[in-house]
Amino acid sequence: MSDFLNRNDVRFFSGRSNPDLAAGICAQLSVPLDQTYFSRFSNDNLHVQLGTSVRGRDVYIVQSLTPPVSDHLLELLMMLDIARGAAAREVHAVIPYFSYARSDKKDAPRVSITARLIADLLQTSGATQVMTMTLHSPQVHGFFSLPTDPLTARGLFVDYIREKQLDRCNTVVVAPDAGIAKAAAKFAERVGLPLAVGNKIRLSDTSVSVNDLVGRQVEGFQHAIVYDDEIATGGSVDEVCQIMVKHGITEITVICTHGLFLGRAVERLSSIPEIVDIVTTDTVAIPQEKRLPNMTVLSVATVFADAIRRNYFRLSLGDLFTYGEDVEVTGVQCAP
Amino acid sequence: MSDFLNRNDVRFFSGRSNPDLAAGICAQLSVPLDQTYFSRFSNDNLHVQLGTSVRGRDVYIVQSLTPPVSDHLLELLMMLDIARGAAAREVHAVIPYFSYARSDKKDAPRVSITARLIADLLQTSGATQVMTMTLHSPQVHGFFSLPTDPLTARGLFVDYIREKQLDRCNTVVVAPDAGIAKAAAKFAERVGLPLAVGNKIRLSDTSVSVNDLVGRQVEGFQHAIVYDDEIATGGSVDEVCQIMVKHGITEITVICTHGLFLGRAVERLSSIPEIVDIVTTDTVAIPQEKRLPNMTVLSVATVFADAIRRNYFRLSLGDLFTYGEDVEVTGVQCAP
Amino acid sequence: MSDFLNRNDVRFFSGRSNPDLAAGICAQLSVPLDQTYFSRFSNDNLHVQLGTSVRGRDVYIVQSLTPPVSDHLLELLMMLDIARGAAAREVHAVIPYFSYARSDKKDAPRVSITARLIADLLQTSGATQVMTMTLHSPQVHGFFSLPTDPLTARGLFVDYIREKQLDRCNTVVVAPDAGIAKAAAKFAERVGLPLAVGNKIRLSDTSVSVNDLVGRQVEGFQHAIVYDDEIATGGSVDEVCQIMVKHGITEITVICTHGLFLGRAVERLSSIPEIVDIVTTDTVAIPQEKRLPNMTVLSVATVFADAIRRNYFRLSLGDLFTYGEDVEVTGVQCAP
Amino acid sequence: MSDFLNRNDVRFFSGRSNPDLAAGICAQLSVPLDQTYFSRFSNDNLHVQLGTSVRGRDVYIVQSLTPPVSDHLLELLMMLDIARGAAAREVHAVIPYFSYARSDKKDAPRVSITARLIADLLQTSGATQVMTMTLHSPQVHGFFSLPTDPLTARGLFVDYIREKQLDRCNTVVVAPDAGIAKAAAKFAERVGLPLAVGNKIRLSDTSVSVNDLVGRQVEGFQHAIVYDDEIATGGSVDEVCQIMVKHGITEITVICTHGLFLGRAVERLSSIPEIVDIVTTDTVAIPQEKRLPNMTVLSVATVFADAIRRNYFRLSLGDLFTYGEDVEVTGVQCAP
Amino acid sequence: MSDFLNRNDVRFFSGRSNPDLAAGICAQLSVPLDQTYFSRFSNDNLHVQLGTSVRGRDVYIVQSLTPPVSDHLLELLMMLDIARGAAAREVHAVIPYFSYARSDKKDAPRVSITARLIADLLQTSGATQVMTMTLHSPQVHGFFSLPTDPLTARGLFVDYIREKQLDRCNTVVVAPDAGIAKAAAKFAERVGLPLAVGNKIRLSDTSVSVNDLVGRQVEGFQHAIVYDDEIATGGSVDEVCQIMVKHGITEITVICTHGLFLGRAVERLSSIPEIVDIVTTDTVAIPQEKRLPNMTVLSVATVFADAIRRNYFRLSLGDLFTYGEDVEVTGVQCAP
Amino acid sequence: MSDFLNRNDVRFFSGRSNPDLAAGICAQLSVPLDQTYFSRFSNDNLHVQLGTSVRGRDVYIVQSLTPPVSDHLLELLMMLDIARGAAAREVHAVIPYFSYARSDKKDAPRVSITARLIADLLQTSGATQVMTMTLHSPQVHGFFSLPTDPLTARGLFVDYIREKQLDRCNTVVVAPDAGIAKAAAKFAERVGLPLAVGNKIRLSDTSVSVNDLVGRQVEGFQHAIVYDDEIATGGSVDEVCQIMVKHGITEITVICTHGLFLGRAVERLSSIPEIVDIVTTDTVAIPQEKRLPNMTVLSVATVFADAIRRNYFRLSLGDLFTYGEDVEVTGVQCAP
Repeated sequence: MSDFLNRNDVRFFSGRSNPDLAAGICAQLSVPLDQTYFSRFSNDNLHVQLGTSVRGRDVYIVQSLTPPVSDHLLELLMMLDIARGAAAREVHAVIPYFSYARSDKKDAPRVSITARLIADLLQTSGATQVMTMTLHSPQVHGFFSLPTDPLTARGLFVDYIREKQLDRCNTVVVAPDAGIAKAAAKFAERVGLPLAVGNKIRLSDTSVSVNDLVGRQVEGFQHAIVYDDEIATGGSVDEVCQIMVKHGITEITVICTHGLFLGRAVERLSSIPEIVDIVTTDTVAIPQEKRLPNMTVLSVATVFADAIRRNYFRLSLGDLFTYGEDVEVTGVQCAP
Repeated sequence: MSDFLNRNDVRFFSGRSNPDLAAGICAQLSVPLDQTYFSRFSNDNLHVQLGTSVRGRDVYIVQSLTPPVSDHLLELLMMLDIARGAAAREVHAVIPYFSYARSDKKDAPRVSITARLIADLLQTSGATQVMTMTLHSPQVHGFFSLPTDPLTARGLFVDYIREKQLDRCNTVVVAPDAGIAKAAAKFAERVGLPLAVGNKIRLSDTSVSVNDLVGRQVEGFQHAIVYDDEIATGGSVDEVCQIMVKHGITEITVICTHGLFLGRAVERLSSIPEIVDIVTTDTVAIPQEKRLPNMTVLSVATVFADAIRRNYFRLSLGDLFTYGEDVEVTGVQCAP
Repeated sequence: MSDFLNRNDVRFFSGRSNPDLAAGICAQLSVPLDQTYFSRFSNDNLHVQLGTSVRGRDVYIVQSLTPPVSDHLLELLMMLDIARGAAAREVHAVIPYFSYARSDKKDAPRVSITARLIADLLQTSGATQVMTMTLHSPQVHGFFSLPTDPLTARGLFVDYIREKQLDRCNTVVVAPDAGIAKAAAKFAERVGLPLAVGNKIRLSDTSVSVNDLVGRQVEGFQHAIVYDDEIATGGSVDEVCQIMVKHGITEITVICTHGLFLGRAVERLSSIPEIVDIVTTDTVAIPQEKRLPNMTVLSVATVFADAIRRNYFRLSLGDLFTYGEDVEVTGVQCAP
Repeated sequence: MSDFLNRNDVRFFSGRSNPDLAAGICAQLSVPLDQTYFSRFSNDNLHVQLGTSVRGRDVYIVQSLTPPVSDHLLELLMMLDIARGAAAREVHAVIPYFSYARSDKKDAPRVSITARLIADLLQTSGATQVMTMTLHSPQVHGFFSLPTDPLTARGLFVDYIREKQLDRCNTVVVAPDAGIAKAAAKFAERVGLPLAVGNKIRLSDTSVSVNDLVGRQVEGFQHAIVYDDEIATGGSVDEVCQIMVKHGITEITVICTHGLFLGRAVERLSSIPEIVDIVTTDTVAIPQEKRLPNMTVLSVATVFADAIRRNYFRLSLGDLFTYGEDVEVTGVQCAP
Repeated sequence: MSDFLNRNDVRFFSGRSNPDLAAGICAQLSVPLDQTYFSRFSNDNLHVQLGTSVRGRDVYIVQSLTPPVSDHLLELLMMLDIARGAAAREVHAVIPYFSYARSDKKDAPRVSITARLIADLLQTSGATQVMTMTLHSPQVHGFFSLPTDPLTARGLFVDYIREKQLDRCNTVVVAPDAGIAKAAAKFAERVGLPLAVGNKIRLSDTSVSVNDLVGRQVEGFQHAIVYDDEIATGGSVDEVCQIMVKHGITEITVICTHGLFLGRAVERLSSIPEIVDIVTTDTVAIPQEKRLPNMTVLSVATVFADAIRRNYFRLSLGDLFTYGEDVEVTGVQCAP
Repeated sequence: MSDFLNRNDVRFFSGRSNPDLAAGICAQLSVPLDQTYFSRFSNDNLHVQLGTSVRGRDVYIVQSLTPPVSDHLLELLMMLDIARGAAAREVHAVIPYFSYARSDKKDAPRVSITARLIADLLQTSGATQVMTMTLHSPQVHGFFSLPTDPLTARGLFVDYIREKQLDRCNTVVVAPDAGIAKAAAKFAERVGLPLAVGNKIRLSDTSVSVNDLVGRQVEGFQHAIVYDDEIATGGSVDEVCQIMVKHGITEITVICTHGLFLGRAVERLSSIPEIVDIVTTDTVAIPQEKRLPNMTVLSVATVFADAIRRNYFRLSLGDLFTYGEDVEVTGVQCAP
């Protein structure tokens, strides 16, 4: 079986949120990224045109829900609608960063479980399959009626850390809160390091407090790898790092899948000298001015390209998949 | 039968596009406008909370699709979703200005008939009925699967013009293009004036050209009432007025339902001294700085309130309705 | 790539409205028209049986909604239902003449937007794609949730007229009303002729009045090509022709896509000696007795066959498509 | 609780198949039958307008699927669509004779189970509930996703026969075939008569053969009551009657719910002198010229009115219902 | 064309009701039966995992609704859901014994037409096609919205009986009641034997009474072949056999498709010495202890495998199909 | 406004899982529990009949998904289907214990997110609203398309503990793992006690291991209140209690909403002498033999009755609701 997709079977289009990642995925697959034309009417209506016939093809539309989220979402919905209406065979919504995954429950009366709403809107607009990465909670997978593959960047992080050949005796993986604990545990196991888990308590959308207890768990280590899914304003990772430092950590590696770096995030991260390495991905397009000298941006293009290739050749996506990160947590211990 | 809605049966909420109109509708109905809380997460996700229980109530959510259109649309979809999920009995989307009505056909390959897409998204999000005003083409009505009432502001314009007691011998109604001709004809008949119809040719979204032929039709008149559905950047109305002036018109009244006044619109309108009166409505919220001295903003609150009251008391909405503006066009003539 | 469809991949069936066109399409594609068996139970119930297995095939069902429309519609719905239930892969409703496209808006209270209703019934019955030709208004396209291709016969008319080598200096294309203006403009441009546009005012279903203004536009020309989408009872084309004659036109070519020729149509057309040529198509089956000596019936079989071939080979249908007829209207002028 | 419906809560409309029955139902309920306007465009498209506002009302639309069945079906679908689109609260399709109930199974490859298709079309068109009478097989009830009430006219027949005070010693009820046996058994039990069951073998749509075995069962009786659901061309009842006569029956009463009397039916029935009484109902409108002197047409208006009244007052419809006719068959015997 | 399915295109899985039949089907098709893992959580929740990737494959899931029916149904629904969610191309529910086909009508107020409910649940869970065998009534076919193929085992029985070379002069086929009469007639015709039909009257779920009339029909014959669709507790077949014996039959062959043999069935059948042969199939798994010495279990694996092969190669399933068993009944007579 | 439901507006039915709770809810509301008839056909098919007309009523069907879960689920689906088909106005599925909430994510390839599947099946079967209690994760709420109210028993536990007047200086609330931490924090705050959080690691369905770290947090306290959502086999609570005891706790109160007490649960709980009180509810029916002397079963009938009453009178359910248990966690500390 060939490793190459038949160019005539597929079509790739990119919304305006992250064209570089879309181009990267296409480069990995040796297929062209087809043109899309965007404009805005004087009354602020969006206008989108796909540049190539999609009739009978498997169409992949790449769009991250980054700011301006509403515009990017509507662009995506329109592109799906066009592909369906133009008689595509399959219409894949590829959403590297699905921002609304955080709106996954009703934590007050009369609010919207918006992640579910968006999942339904994607289907109404014509998506037949969804690909995304590291949803905020694994249950969000169940909001989709369509076949949906939530991929993981963990493999990229594992390879990166393994290459660093960190001292296994004085390095600890730190999960800032219980929500990320299982994913961090799986990562820790794959790189052969112990794990400490904090209890992050959310005060508001922009302000969190991390229980100091995690500090006691890291005493005796020198290097901490703080492992999280998303850095928005950086408040939470800032506080964890300060607790680390207070408890004797002298070197910190920060790992996160979705590097939004909004508000004061860059400032916060650059003000902690112990942070030697910030490792993130390009699910969110990171402009040059936010790229700190100690920042490494791993491309998830390989992961999405691999998933698309496997889907095309009808191979299992098991290895690329997150599966609620539940497996093999047993045996992980924090025991310096 | 009482004229008052039972306050305990209904709930009114407003998105952020046009709260004054929402308040006006509620004032007309003697019911309170319920509170809605809006915020935005640091990652640009919207967060909306309805402030009052809607269980078993008829809920009305007022939102115009004005810029930023995507945010306002998503707000609306989330509010509908909340109302449905909180067990409302009926969920009415009240959309005084439905911007995407203009995207009503496939005028190029691989574009979206976005008006239909939005109609479907409204239903997916939980709307059970839709109220709107003066859709760009009457066929858009057929895009909605839900009971939908496209209302008209024509009655307001008729009353306004009748009060002016314009000279019937030297005043002519001008429809800038064939699309608006039927609506203009109905208006002309109700105010007892002759009609002239132009042929507008759209060069691009922001540039149109009006066939000079309409000029010949208005010769001999002094006062022209230019009747259109929407003024965005004002290019089209600008050109029509200049043709009018060239052909001897000395006084111009401009009437339009949706006064967006975007880009150079205000500048254009204020640069034509023959325009004595600009009559529009508040389907789109018009900020103070755009309100020219010769501008009259009629409130459609009475029209929507009347429709809601009739719906509540199960009366026919016939008189408020547009019906494709088809009826009674017979006999309308341009015959000075 | 071969130009021939694999006979084993497709199945073609015809309802009883226009078997000759169905046979023509199949001949163009070098595939057989499969047998369908029709009968009627004693209680007037229809009974339909498809004559060949459709399992896993792309099925094309050709049916025009010509009188008796209700029977032909129900036949179509039953044939779609059979194909779906018998496990066809794709089920294409090919509707050369979609009569209900005219019922596209609510022009009175409590009437049905029947074009939308029929679009939904087609989907309920199992259609997965729709092909049709020259819908009365381009917005009707948006009534279909399914991938839908409204084709155009314009190319046939262009070829026909070009071959005639008409004198470009004294021939004008006439659009009887604004609704057909854009399509006529596109046609005029392709044959390099000027355009005149009339204002048809519909008095009732069978009676229309054409504003005399169009007459002034054609003065100075000798030959007029009246371009319309449909001739039913012929009242409208009759009146336009008489206006033409009154304003000096001595030769008239009438072009229309859907030649229904109902009621007094044939009589009307044959009573105007200036009509030298009536050009129509076979979207509606025209019986021998209605074929006037000066009538040319172009077969749309080539257009549908081409669209089906392109769909089969996953080529763009762009060139066959109507696209609301909006493009390239710029520059068209009536300037003798 | 009042016995009268609040006139302001309900609306009744009739299609063109059976306006007398619709009027009869309304008379029973002391509510007016609202006006409906029907016309046909020159291209044979139907046009329907409901004459009264239905907003928030329970709408009942009465239409039997009698010839021309396709037109009557489409009328019904359009009326449902109008009621839904005009914001009715409930939309009841009242179908006294549902002709397509006979197309209830796939008895050949690639035919349609049209009864199921029609059930789906009714729902797509906006029906929220269905009322009908004596479906050809009780399983057809399961084709409807909507709450559906198949009523029975048996009560009317029971009352009629009881009044006749027939001699219980020499009268036998005859079910022409096994399909009607259970319903006939229930009838026989209610009137206290024995039952004989024939084996009808359908040769084609218009020709059946009744196994002579039933003749042996009726020997010794003088009066036979032939009980069937529908008489179309009368071939089957004709043959049964002849067998009866051959085996000594001297008086025959024919009972059927749906009296279509198509083709040679009237002629056939009038040529058997032993038939003393033909009892049928008005689910199908019977024109004067088909009403034989010995024919009694019982109106089902009372049954439908009663069902509507019970539905309105939320009472059980149990007594009016057919329930597959299964109950209480035990103990029925043919034992003279 | 090859007779072999491409193993890489298909996946076969079996629920826990009848793994032997599933294995038999796979053996017939020379494809492996893929692994499925079943377990039950401590709170009685079922847990199912498919053992092989199904991405882009045609998936066949074999499950009979045998006791425990609810567990087997839920297993099936979960397996369908998994296949759909894992991006299978087609998902076939293969249900050799569809127990709920018996719940096909509303024979009392406020009961469920459960066969229709289950049909809907299968679709909701992800089935795209259904294969089953000998539904209790042919109308149940119409409950499915999906392409559904109700197969028949009649061919197996015909072959079996032909091989026996029974004496045509003294053997009669017996249909215990009218419901099975048409299927029995078709069988009788194919084996060239006369037919007798009984009138079974159901007293309750476990108790029936067969009208003695059938006895008279078999007088003069020595060997009766009792032909039924299902034997549950065996009460009905028991009674028919006793009537046969009473009327002189000395040898009985019992044929039924679904051999449930519940309650006292085995005991009953073994107590009638005249029963020389019980012929059934493996749609229901028959444990060793219920296999009487005179019982022959024909495997339907060949029938299902043939249907699957035909579906895969897009051949007609006509010959395997039941078609309401209506055809060719004409001419069948009971005439010794 | 009266506090009493109008008996004629509502109907209450109970499945077979927990009739006592259903009766308790009805008693609280002063309405009768209507009869439901259950039986099983000989082939194991379920048969259900509702005992009272539901036409136009709000129907509440109470069923916990306790063992046998599949039978109880199917009963529920059939009851919903009956209510819908019998023209109920609203159909509420009241599911005090929704067992499948635990199957809320894809933690391995090719498994089912069964909680989502069941949510969809409930809707397909006719539910219009859902009421349940303490779902395993708050995200499961988003699996339901219908208005859904996940209630909480926390108020009952708060009242119970407040009445005990526990010493605030030496009592600590213990959340066995992070999943329950937020709910436990809310409880702790309402009773004014500190909180400790353990890290439970699930080894398999029946075996878990609790990280010993929680032990250090409770040192210095005497009384621990272990707060969990569900006790199945009791393994997890057993281990937590033993850790408590090891770290000096001498009195333990165990609180859980869903007391399944399966397998060795009763044995385990009765073998720890420090457990002085086991507080649970009747969402799961607890048979007499499992009721330990130190067990207190609080009835949630009041909570469900209150929610139903509020729904009926259209009051907010805010106070009864769980809201992801997110609010007010701030300030909770473990600080002896």
